[in-house]
Amino acid sequence: MMRVLITGPSGFIGTHCLRRLLKEDCEIHAVNRTRAAEYNDRVTWHAADLRDAAQAVAIIARVRPTHLLHGAWVATPKVYGHSPENIAWLQSSIALVGAFGEHGGIRFVGMGSSAEYAPAVGLPCIEDATPIRPATIYGKCKAACWLGVQAAGQQHGFSSAWGRLFLPYGPGDPPQRLVPTVIASLCSGQPVQITHGAKKRDFIYAPDAADLFVRLLLAPGNGAFNIGTGQATTIRFVVEYLAARYGKPELLHFGAIGPLPGEPPFLVADMQKVHDQLSWPAPTDIRSGLDQILSSLD
Amino acid sequence: MMRVLITGPSGFIGTHCLRRLLKEDCEIHAVNRTRAAEYNDRVTWHAADLRDAAQAVAIIARVRPTHLLHGAWVATPKVYGHSPENIAWLQSSIALVGAFGEHGGIRFVGMGSSAEYAPAVGLPCIEDATPIRPATIYGKCKAACWLGVQAAGQQHGFSSAWGRLFLPYGPGDPPQRLVPTVIASLCSGQPVQITHGAKKRDFIYAPDAADLFVRLLLAPGNGAFNIGTGQATTIRFVVEYLAARYGKPELLHFGAIGPLPGEPPFLVADMQKVHDQLSWPAPTDIRSGLDQILSSLD
Repeated sequence: MMRVLITGPSGFIGTHCLRRLLKEDCEIHAVNRTRAAEYNDRVTWHAADLRDAAQAVAIIARVRPTHLLHGAWVATPKVYGHSPENIAWLQSSIALVGAFGEHGGIRFVGMGSSAEYAPAVGLPCIEDATPIRPATIYGKCKAACWLGVQAAGQQHGFSSAWGRLFLPYGPGDPPQRLVPTVIASLCSGQPVQITHGAKKRDFIYAPDAADLFVRLLLAPGNGAFNIGTGQATTIRFVVEYLAARYGKPELLHFGAIGPLPGEPPFLVADMQKVHDQLSWPAPTDIRSGLDQILSSLD
Repeated sequence: MMRVLITGPSGFIGTHCLRRLLKEDCEIHAVNRTRAAEYNDRVTWHAADLRDAAQAVAIIARVRPTHLLHGAWVATPKVYGHSPENIAWLQSSIALVGAFGEHGGIRFVGMGSSAEYAPAVGLPCIEDATPIRPATIYGKCKAACWLGVQAAGQQHGFSSAWGRLFLPYGPGDPPQRLVPTVIASLCSGQPVQITHGAKKRDFIYAPDAADLFVRLLLAPGNGAFNIGTGQATTIRFVVEYLAARYGKPELLHFGAIGPLPGEPPFLVADMQKVHDQLSWPAPTDIRSGLDQILSSLD
C-alpha cells in the first residue's frame, strides 16, 4: 500500500491536501512542528522542524514513505517572498529528497510556485516554455529546489512532479491575504484601501489546488505542472464582487495604495499540460468559490 | 584590500585561476582537502572537505573573504555527470554562499557549466535566452546552485556572477579527457578509438577560461556569463589536428565507438554578453592552444 508522508499539513494548502488525501486508499503520515492538528484516526502525526536538515532526514528514515507530498516552506503572508528562511528550506528540502530516495521512495510531489516564472504580459505561463527567472528569494529557492529534486530523482530512480501554484483562495486563507482582508473590512464597514487592481491573476480555489496536488501524487509523470485554472481575473473583479455581495461598493478605494513593486501585471497558468496528462475536473468558477467562502461565514 | 578565497584551487581550471589571481593585487586564500599544493608565498592554504556543509561554513568564518571564487565540485572525468556527490556539492555550496553573505562577502563567482543548457542544433547558447534544462545530475545541481547563489546574494546584498564553462583543454587536463587521451595514444603508436567526432563543441584554452573567471571576479555585474570562445569546432578537427602534428593519421579510427548517449550535437557559447560587459581579449585559437600543449611536452 502507498505510504504517504505529507509535510506542511497544517498550512493553508496543506490542510486541504490532507483532507483530499483521506479520500484515497493509503497510509497517511503527516509531519509538522508541533504535531498539533485536527484529529483523524487515519493520520499518524509526527513532530519535526523540517528547516533542520538532520530532522528532515530522520523523519524520512522513521516513516520510510513510498510517496512524499512536500508542502512545508515559509509562507507567512507579505514576508515569505524575501524571508531568509527560504534558503534554510532549500537546504533542508534537498536533504529531505535525498533521504527519500535513499530509503526507497518512489514518488515525490513538491509545491512550487508561479513566482518561478518570468511571465510576459498577456501570455499564460507554459511549464516547459516560459522562462524560469524568479524575482524573489522565494521564487529562486523554489526553482532551485525543483532542480535539486530532479537531480535526486535521477540519482535514486524515483519519479517526481512539481506543482507550480498560482493564486489560491478559499477556506483557511490566512487573514492577511487579499480575500480575508477585504471581507474583514466589508464586514466591519471599514474602507477597503487597495491598489488600482488592474493586475490579472489566476485565482484557484484551494480545494481544487489540493485536488491537483493529490492527482499529481497518484500520477506517474515526471515534470512541472501548473496548479491554476487558466482563467485571468483582475484583483479589481474579486474585490468588486465581494463588495457587491455585501452591498457596500462605496467602501472601495481603488488606487488608495500604489502598485506593489516587482509584481507582474499578468500571471496566469496555461493548463494544457495538466489537461493532457491528468484527469482534470472543471475548476471552481471564481464567483462560485467566493460565494462558498461567504456562505461558510454566515 | 580584496581578500579572495578560491575553492578547488588544485583542480584543472582552479589551478589556472589561482595562477591568474597572482597577477592581481589581492590577498589570496585557497582551500582544498589536503592543503597539498604548489608553493607560493602569496597564497595562504587551508584544509577542509567542502562537501561537508559545516566545514564549508567554518572556512568562511575563518577567512572572511570579500571575494569568493567557488570552483570546488566533483569533476572526475566520465563520472561527474551522474555522481551522487553532485547533490552533496549542491547542499554544501548553498551553505557556503549563505555563510559568505553572513560574514560580509561582497562578490561571488561560481563555476557553472554549459551542461545547464538545453541547446538547439546550430544555435549558440545565450545566457539569458537559451532554456536551462540540464540532462545530467551534474547540470541540474549546477543550475540549482546558481539559483541558490542568487537567492543568497539577494538576501545578503552581495553581487554574484556564474561562469558557464564550455569545453576546456590545456595544460593540466586530466589524462582521461579527450586531448590527453588522444596524445597518449599517438605518442605510443596505439590506435585512437573514437566516435565519428561530428559533434561541435566550444573548446576553450584553460588559461583563457581562468582569465575570464578572474575578470568576472573583479567585475561588478550580476548574472550568468558564458566561459567559451564562440567558435564551433568538431571533435574530429581536434583529433585530426593532433594526428597530423604527430604525422600519424593512420592511427585514427573514427566510428570505432558509438555515439555517447545524451550528448548534444552542438554546444557552443554565444559571447556577446561577455564581449559587451567584460574587457575580453581575443581567445586563443584552437590550433595555437593545441600547439602550446604539444610544445610543452617536447
